[in-house]
Amino acid sequence: VVRVPIRVIYGDTDQMSVVYYGNYLRYFEAARNEFIRSKGLRYRDFEAEHRLLLPVAEAHVSYRTPARYDDLLTVEIALGEARRASARFDYRIVREEDGAVVATGHTLHACVDLDGKVRRLPAVLLAALSAGEPAGSASGA
Amino acid sequence: VVRVPIRVIYGDTDQMSVVYYGNYLRYFEAARNEFIRSKGLRYRDFEAEHRLLLPVAEAHVSYRTPARYDDLLTVEIALGEARRASARFDYRIVREEDGAVVATGHTLHACVDLDGKVRRLPAVLLAALSAGEPAGSASGA
Amino acid sequence: VVRVPIRVIYGDTDQMSVVYYGNYLRYFEAARNEFIRSKGLRYRDFEAEHRLLLPVAEAHVSYRTPARYDDLLTVEIALGEARRASARFDYRIVREEDGAVVATGHTLHACVDLDGKVRRLPAVLLAALSAGEPAGSASGA
Amino acid sequence: VVRVPIRVIYGDTDQMSVVYYGNYLRYFEAARNEFIRSKGLRYRDFEAEHRLLLPVAEAHVSYRTPARYDDLLTVEIALGEARRASARFDYRIVREEDGAVVATGHTLHACVDLDGKVRRLPAVLLAALSAGEPAGSASGA
Repeated sequence: VVRVPIRVIYGDTDQMSVVYYGNYLRYFEAARNEFIRSKGLRYRDFEAEHRLLLPVAEAHVSYRTPARYDDLLTVEIALGEARRASARFDYRIVREEDGAVVATGHTLHACVDLDGKVRRLPAVLLAALSAGEPAGSASGA
Repeated sequence: VVRVPIRVIYGDTDQMSVVYYGNYLRYFEAARNEFIRSKGLRYRDFEAEHRLLLPVAEAHVSYRTPARYDDLLTVEIALGEARRASARFDYRIVREEDGAVVATGHTLHACVDLDGKVRRLPAVLLAALSAGEPAGSASGA
Repeated sequence: VVRVPIRVIYGDTDQMSVVYYGNYLRYFEAARNEFIRSKGLRYRDFEAEHRLLLPVAEAHVSYRTPARYDDLLTVEIALGEARRASARFDYRIVREEDGAVVATGHTLHACVDLDGKVRRLPAVLLAALSAGEPAGSASGA
Repeated sequence: VVRVPIRVIYGDTDQMSVVYYGNYLRYFEAARNEFIRSKGLRYRDFEAEHRLLLPVAEAHVSYRTPARYDDLLTVEIALGEARRASARFDYRIVREEDGAVVATGHTLHACVDLDGKVRRLPAVLLAALSAGEPAGSASGA
């Protein structure tokens, strides 16, 4: 599990005075970048070295407690499940001030080559993504 | 079913030259606004007249074919299911040029009063939202 | 002058219940795309046919009257001045309901080749951009 | 001068593989929030305690060197000039890796009360904003 801080700005809110529902996918992405970096990888290297991309196939968000302007949030991200040609990331966003769970969700990523063909997720990448994560979180089944 | 046109701008794309995954929730919202307007309602009246809000409780997107800059998209929206205190909208985004299905998804909305308490969706609102939609699409069960 | 309609969505607003100040640059861009299309050009052709790009060198916005959720806006765009290697677009955003001027501004675009070198704006492009616009709006000086 | 780090995410870029021009106004805002916080103020208190708002009247950006995905940027912000009923903030965005100046710009803010009437910027607020800043940067003239 990797934890990434996010400070809510005005530009993230909408006129209900809460974070606009689509912006949580930005927060998820910011966390995903840091997760990958924390494993010693860089997303840009997936393409340059492995000729692979991990486009989002599915995204899901459950909204629990609205986040507001100036809230300091923590996005927790974990590798949820890695299959032959896909990987899922699970997210939980918590507000620092009171520990309220703001949102949970996941993104499912396909592993494709630069022509868009589905490819097996290389073992070396899977091993790197799973490093330091709880056993069984990435079964590679 | 209500159909809403969207023209993709540069600001919607990311460096993969496709629409950023979070922006589909903006397209969903644009369609939701037009759906409500097409039924003779205005979202702002929900609050002013009924003292109710319909915050998003859950959002889901399945990404099928990437949309690109300058694509003309049609967002199809339908009332998926209306329960005592919630309503679901279903979405399908199609690219006009070739009919490709770009994305599908749904949003689930709770019906709450201005204090955030869950409230029954008023019959008059449900009837208005269901008007002209296929029978059974909003069971009100 | 080309006029482009924009309907304000929730995602454009912030917690002041007005359109977030950065989003006017999205509206400007949407209008720029339609301006170019209305002249029989496509921005993507600049790159494919002329090997040229028109990156934004400068953007300016003056905020007059706040736009709000569900407002129907018209973005008016005109070619402001075209020089050897740059072009300026001028914008005015008006609210349809009451004719209020919401914002004015401009963007200045450099003409560069795919290596980023400044290039003369081709006469054929300048002529196309100026077609139907008031004389003197693009002096080409 | 206050310095605020920003990590560029995919959602900030566009298909030119650079940060979308409108998103620099988000970076400016993030820096503005931190500037105000660093002076012991909170923007929300302007409204709650002083019954004042500081809406943006004007924004300007000069784009120098494109920022890219994963770049670590520093936004430098300084109080540029404070007049009777307005304050200007000046910004400079620098890329950490090579020190390149990515963008410069300013925002001009009016001081208005909750009815939208122009009001004198209170001396206590001006003093707080100017604390620790170079003499003369906020003349209060």
